Amino acid sequence: MNKGKVTLVSAGPGDLDLLTFRAAKAIAAADVLLIDDLVDDEIVTLKAPHARVIRVGKRGGCKSTPQAFIQRLMRRYALQGRHVVRVKGGEALLFGRAGEEIAELAQAGIAVDIVNGISSGFAAAAGLGVSLTHRDHCQGVIFVTAHLRDGTEPDWGALAATGMTLAIYMGASRIDSISGALRHTLAPDTPAAVVQWAGTAREKRVCATLGDIAARAAQAQIASPAVILIGNAIGESVANEAARSEPVRRMRA
Amino acid sequence: MNKGKVTLVSAGPGDLDLLTFRAAKAIAAADVLLIDDLVDDEIVTLKAPHARVIRVGKRGGCKSTPQAFIQRLMRRYALQGRHVVRVKGGEALLFGRAGEEIAELAQAGIAVDIVNGISSGFAAAAGLGVSLTHRDHCQGVIFVTAHLRDGTEPDWGALAATGMTLAIYMGASRIDSISGALRHTLAPDTPAAVVQWAGTAREKRVCATLGDIAARAAQAQIASPAVILIGNAIGESVANEAARSEPVRRMRA
Repeated sequence: MNKGKVTLVSAGPGDLDLLTFRAAKAIAAADVLLIDDLVDDEIVTLKAPHARVIRVGKRGGCKSTPQAFIQRLMRRYALQGRHVVRVKGGEALLFGRAGEEIAELAQAGIAVDIVNGISSGFAAAAGLGVSLTHRDHCQGVIFVTAHLRDGTEPDWGALAATGMTLAIYMGASRIDSISGALRHTLAPDTPAAVVQWAGTAREKRVCATLGDIAARAAQAQIASPAVILIGNAIGESVANEAARSEPVRRMRA
Repeated sequence: MNKGKVTLVSAGPGDLDLLTFRAAKAIAAADVLLIDDLVDDEIVTLKAPHARVIRVGKRGGCKSTPQAFIQRLMRRYALQGRHVVRVKGGEALLFGRAGEEIAELAQAGIAVDIVNGISSGFAAAAGLGVSLTHRDHCQGVIFVTAHLRDGTEPDWGALAATGMTLAIYMGASRIDSISGALRHTLAPDTPAAVVQWAGTAREKRVCATLGDIAARAAQAQIASPAVILIGNAIGESVANEAARSEPVRRMRA
């Protein structure tokens, strides 16, 4: 029997419009689809009629499908000769547990293809109408998760001291303590934004400063999934909007 | 007369397969296309018959089209009521001068839409078969340009000390001095890779260590455009390949 394979497909923020052609082709070619719960339901319209769909939701806090079980499923179907497509929200290679999945599949001798996608930090910046790395302001951007596996915090002071834009994932529920920690290094008027469901029709965003972002996010009832963006490059959003008669529009083609 | 608008479209690494549907729709809707020289020529097959194509190549070192001229062109056509689509390689919001373009257009009262794409750092990681943020190894990833506008260098020591994966753009020509600077903080056996033309048919990659990456890149004649990836998460590439009978395959659907 032929050995199957696994394709890790990054589904982007949600809207099917933000899928790549390569991702759509991979989904159409799948025998078995394992679909994350941050992925839009509509994605199954792209699959082949015979393909089996398994939803493997696993949101922070309520682990409906344990990671080990997802990995066993992928391995089992691939060893049966199936083409397994694992569809992950955002970009699979950024905070997606893809590293563990690839390593385990590799150990079982299973080939893995990876298809890139749009991560929510980029979608959030597009919605705000800003570059993450405006060269008047910074030399780069740091993507960091606020949710460390050992329960500790990233070294916010060291990250802030680099002067780079910060894109903080999985931090919405602790935005108060994170912004507090960053204020030890950054001025309270440092531009900050938080964007929930970035890149989807239900996107919700707040532009503020490091000093008031936590209060403003609470007021706007911003919750997970959301990305927090901090740095002077993000402040261009307000400048760009103020310069115009109409707000930044996101394309809805 | 209606005021036109500008859409900044991120074309990804090159292969049209890595475009998003939204990007393809924007290109099809354009009256005027301004196309960067890192973008695959084939992209014009997606345009409308009437659309005008202007190539605005501007590679590091040989500035064939000055940035100010590109910005003037965009503004002029938009103020004539045209839909201008500016097609940039990679992700427009990462090291793409998009910040300056958006700000100038906003000042002229011109609406700007942004369409995200796949940046070469992600495409490089997909080719290597690694996550940029394997949680056994790091808390995130830093995207930094080695090419600072004032001719200075990023603070390599501070970046290395964060323990994060480093994705260094525009550093191929100075990989020797960059890896040397990083060795003040990181061990010489820290995994390192350099990937030229990531995500395209002519992709070329070298997996090595911080100690020998510069020599190995020179040997393999890796040149710009290339991205350098450094950190323990990148070392998974070798482990994953070694565990299997066949190398990591990139999907060519």
